[in-house]
Amino acid sequence: MRYELYYWPGIQGRGEFVRLALEDAGADYVEVARQPRGMAAMSRLMESPSVKRPPFAPPFLKTGKLVIAQTANILAFLGPRLGLAPKQEAGRLWAHQLQLTIADWLAEVHDSHHPIGGGLYHEDQKREAKRRAADFTTERLPKFLNYFERVLERNGSRFLVGNAASYVDLSLFQMIEGLRYAFPRAMTTQERKHRRVIALHDRVAARPRLAAYLTSERRLPFNQEGIFRRYPELDDRS
Amino acid sequence: MRYELYYWPGIQGRGEFVRLALEDAGADYVEVARQPRGMAAMSRLMESPSVKRPPFAPPFLKTGKLVIAQTANILAFLGPRLGLAPKQEAGRLWAHQLQLTIADWLAEVHDSHHPIGGGLYHEDQKREAKRRAADFTTERLPKFLNYFERVLERNGSRFLVGNAASYVDLSLFQMIEGLRYAFPRAMTTQERKHRRVIALHDRVAARPRLAAYLTSERRLPFNQEGIFRRYPELDDRS
Repeated sequence: MRYELYYWPGIQGRGEFVRLALEDAGADYVEVARQPRGMAAMSRLMESPSVKRPPFAPPFLKTGKLVIAQTANILAFLGPRLGLAPKQEAGRLWAHQLQLTIADWLAEVHDSHHPIGGGLYHEDQKREAKRRAADFTTERLPKFLNYFERVLERNGSRFLVGNAASYVDLSLFQMIEGLRYAFPRAMTTQERKHRRVIALHDRVAARPRLAAYLTSERRLPFNQEGIFRRYPELDDRS
Repeated sequence: MRYELYYWPGIQGRGEFVRLALEDAGADYVEVARQPRGMAAMSRLMESPSVKRPPFAPPFLKTGKLVIAQTANILAFLGPRLGLAPKQEAGRLWAHQLQLTIADWLAEVHDSHHPIGGGLYHEDQKREAKRRAADFTTERLPKFLNYFERVLERNGSRFLVGNAASYVDLSLFQMIEGLRYAFPRAMTTQERKHRRVIALHDRVAARPRLAAYLTSERRLPFNQEGIFRRYPELDDRS
């Protein structure tokens, strides 16, 4: 099965969570918006009146006649097909639940630099961002990390879900990567307290296909247009 | 099948989206946290080390041995069981995608009065809320309403998904109800431009079991502790 992934070509963003699953599985996929005329194709799927089920926003995945949007929804679809989700319904619901919690966490990362509006420049909301980022690094970041540490502890295994790697492990890896880029000081403090999460991150990074991807040109670097951004004044100063 | 719904007892909040589905289907369910010792039972499921798969936050649904959290995940589980979702995978993915878009919209409603942090009082972020709410009512609210208007138009039917009512229709009804409470001025302007969305809202309100629920004591009123809050200074003044 060939997959077409549609996402903004210059950032990791939400699309990266899908890319990691496709790359880890060695799936046959193409990044449409990085191809010639790819951006036009992406816009068409969002805007053309002939599209019966238009996505609200990228990323979305096209396979056969299906167009699937919302990152967690895409991963719930791909997981079983890529061997990155449990076989039973209970396990799949649990994996999806964790992925939706990661989605909430990621939205809070975004709002740490854009607390007033995603359509405004960061420079026009710097004062508010400083307050929001302080709340994020002192309250929300530890709360989410504690949660995933607890999930790993209670599962008593090397994975978040059951006894095998799932797309959720890959997504938690990506959260840690992004948080290290955006909040290096806050993370230095937090990592010591969340050894299981960090160990999981390290195991994911060492998966052969993923390790190859992470050093390839397909892996875009973090930058100041993505969801994870490094504004030193927003990082924990304590 | 008996369902136990766990959610904060004093607000509609995210739990209401689940309640509407259960009520519309005439399902056998109990609101655990409104029962004696119910809050303790809810805390136990979140905090006890014996719970292998702890929810990050309410709402969650217990049925048999399953505990399912994240509103959209609960609805994806309940939809087919309550006759409120399409039978085919493609339709289910589309319904879930729309529900996740509603979840994003709802989070933005919350942040319109809490742009700095959910753990802080609104009174400690009033200035920031005014800026964020202005962006919400002028940019985001029309964008989401336009999107759902377009989805209804392209589906060419009385429903968002296929040719039958789904949990997504109930959730869009709830969004309109809440937005009318929180932003009556902004909504007066917007409703004229989104006739299909409002007509859908009205049809949902007239569904017999839902109409009975909405006038019952089980339907909590909107209030200033929920996600939809009425702060007149945050409503559109244009």
